[in-house]
Amino acid sequence: MLVNIITVGDELLIGQVIDTNSAWIARELNLIGGRLGSRISVGDTHADIMRALDRAVWDADVVLITGGLGPTRDDITKKALADFLGDGFVFSQETYSRIETLMTKLGRPVSEGHRQQCLMPQSAVLLTNNMGTAPGMWMESNGRILIAMPGVPYEMQDIMTHEVLPRLAKRFPLPELLHHTFHTAGEAETVIADKLEAFEDALPEGFKLAYLPGIGQVRVRLSGRDVSRVEFEAKLNELEVLLGHWIYGSNGDTLAASLGRLLQQRGLKMATAESCTGGHIAHLVTTEPGASAHFLGGVVAYSNALKTQLLGVSESTLAAHGAVSEETVLDMVRGVQQLTGAKAALAISGIAGPDGGSEEKPVGTIWLAVAVGEHTRTHKLQLFRDRLKNIQYSSVFVLELLRREILKNSDSR
Amino acid sequence: MLVNIITVGDELLIGQVIDTNSAWIARELNLIGGRLGSRISVGDTHADIMRALDRAVWDADVVLITGGLGPTRDDITKKALADFLGDGFVFSQETYSRIETLMTKLGRPVSEGHRQQCLMPQSAVLLTNNMGTAPGMWMESNGRILIAMPGVPYEMQDIMTHEVLPRLAKRFPLPELLHHTFHTAGEAETVIADKLEAFEDALPEGFKLAYLPGIGQVRVRLSGRDVSRVEFEAKLNELEVLLGHWIYGSNGDTLAASLGRLLQQRGLKMATAESCTGGHIAHLVTTEPGASAHFLGGVVAYSNALKTQLLGVSESTLAAHGAVSEETVLDMVRGVQQLTGAKAALAISGIAGPDGGSEEKPVGTIWLAVAVGEHTRTHKLQLFRDRLKNIQYSSVFVLELLRREILKNSDSR
Repeated sequence: MLVNIITVGDELLIGQVIDTNSAWIARELNLIGGRLGSRISVGDTHADIMRALDRAVWDADVVLITGGLGPTRDDITKKALADFLGDGFVFSQETYSRIETLMTKLGRPVSEGHRQQCLMPQSAVLLTNNMGTAPGMWMESNGRILIAMPGVPYEMQDIMTHEVLPRLAKRFPLPELLHHTFHTAGEAETVIADKLEAFEDALPEGFKLAYLPGIGQVRVRLSGRDVSRVEFEAKLNELEVLLGHWIYGSNGDTLAASLGRLLQQRGLKMATAESCTGGHIAHLVTTEPGASAHFLGGVVAYSNALKTQLLGVSESTLAAHGAVSEETVLDMVRGVQQLTGAKAALAISGIAGPDGGSEEKPVGTIWLAVAVGEHTRTHKLQLFRDRLKNIQYSSVFVLELLRREILKNSDSR
Repeated sequence: MLVNIITVGDELLIGQVIDTNSAWIARELNLIGGRLGSRISVGDTHADIMRALDRAVWDADVVLITGGLGPTRDDITKKALADFLGDGFVFSQETYSRIETLMTKLGRPVSEGHRQQCLMPQSAVLLTNNMGTAPGMWMESNGRILIAMPGVPYEMQDIMTHEVLPRLAKRFPLPELLHHTFHTAGEAETVIADKLEAFEDALPEGFKLAYLPGIGQVRVRLSGRDVSRVEFEAKLNELEVLLGHWIYGSNGDTLAASLGRLLQQRGLKMATAESCTGGHIAHLVTTEPGASAHFLGGVVAYSNALKTQLLGVSESTLAAHGAVSEETVLDMVRGVQQLTGAKAALAISGIAGPDGGSEEKPVGTIWLAVAVGEHTRTHKLQLFRDRLKNIQYSSVFVLELLRREILKNSDSR
């Protein structure tokens, strides 16, 4: 089942809105074995919608149209659809009753716009919208299925979940598509690819391996089409063994969530001492729900005075080695352990850029330290010229370093 | 100039990644008078890419291809492009030297995958990638321009900004489009729209007003097509007067950068005391280059113990009013002023969710305090059920509150 999407509305054409609908739809289709082909974005004009319909039906089994079903005058998707199908309009009393009930509940009058919303192409089967006024529509034309839905994400998702996906799954019984994604951090894509080269070469027909790189992270996805679940699990195990402790999680997991689970399993609390990352590491940790169970807090010691005063970095260390040095991050990590009482801690100090570098310590020089109880480990990164990228990359790297250090010192509770 | 996009990579087809690239590209194209037509998403297979190229060149002046230029073998965009153009491959010594330099700096070996990255379609003009190893490519075929770039957003943006957009603007000289965007924070879109209603109604032919809402922020863009610069400036002044002190910046400015400039003008240093935002505010402040000139540092006091110990929040305050209260954030903001010596400071404590709410203080209850010297101001927000959105919204809101408080107390240095 190949599906094309048409999005209607100026807001996507000029980049005012990010299209999250397509990713959601793709994910859901994928689960029933469908595949997203093209997405065509058009503005709110009759001719553009007609042309998009012409193109979209060309190679797809199903065309999903989102947007342009609202009560304002720029929403003309329905008129274009009726013309495309050679259909007239009928008034849907059922839709009118639903809108009337809803408006009464909200204490608002039923408007002329609402009345317009009840006019439907004759041949359309209406799809219930539990989240708004405009129903979805299911139409067929020359063996193609056309489905129109509002563009508002939660309305679209409601109609897809309860109406569209069950109908499509019934209409297109499909070969099973299996996939699993492992998440790694701290290793380069090329290093991972080298490690997996023989494995990938030996993959049987129907299997596919893909690398999805992010900043400081690489996700590795194995997928299998028309392969048995047993066969798939066997290959997946092989892959898991090869990647070993590089794997911090699976299928949408975040590094911070994975680290959080590990800390809770080991009964450890953590704290952060940040200079160049300026709070980004604490932010990553606390974005996860329930972080307060393992995160005590942190210090953003941007000035040297705060490094000394709060974290106990000695002035002689700063004078002899500078703020960006192994000695300083070791003092910082010890300092934040003492300050907060956390057994697990990390510290970071570097030159994020774009200015502030020197011959000896160019922009992108970043020192990290992690501590688990008595054990400490330090690492030096030599990164990029880009400030934000340096912040993001080093944040991920030091979280991964802490995760590995906890795994190494499993008796450190 | 009509532009079609082809995204290559299974990750978009199965919805693993949300396509933020298209919105960014649409916005940038729009600024030079271009328009986004269709986006076709295809997997990493030769035949699909070829078919997408066939379709994309059909009605576009320019086809942008993103993704599939990495060093791993699933990246086959380049092969398909060469075949589409009827091109052979040449080895780019320049690209190899750049990769070699980069890898040496990172202390990593140059791999066979990197070598593959240096093979380029013969007729391609290479576009410098300052953020990664794979360069962009500019090709022409039957009067169409084909441009291939990596799919990693910051690499794509770098190549677009420095190479692609300037070349396109030169190739497609367009009717002069004037535009200016004012950035506001802390006021709702409907409040701003009410204020601007009469102004918008009275705009002459050729002018357009657009609202670009973000989390806690609204950008207001005035654009004029085929209008004189004098006329445009006059309307822009009107708009600026109407928006008044709501405006913190213009044209891509960030709130943190604007606040930073204000602090430096007034000779003030700032510090942060965060609970529920967990370091996000410090992160926003320190993402700006040169932040060390006005930001001393901050405390992420996630646990109550740290609030007491580091920020001097009294245990009786916590017991009587709770951690999420006006009294606590006032103590926190005073505490962080004292701890760091910063005259300007902010503090925040709330229930970010998704759990932890109560009848009296539901999820989304967030208390803020700002201080400029002796002057303090507090504010209570009642926000959403979504954790990340609460963190982002309240971070922006409190930064704006501090900016306004500094403006109000201009004699506070």
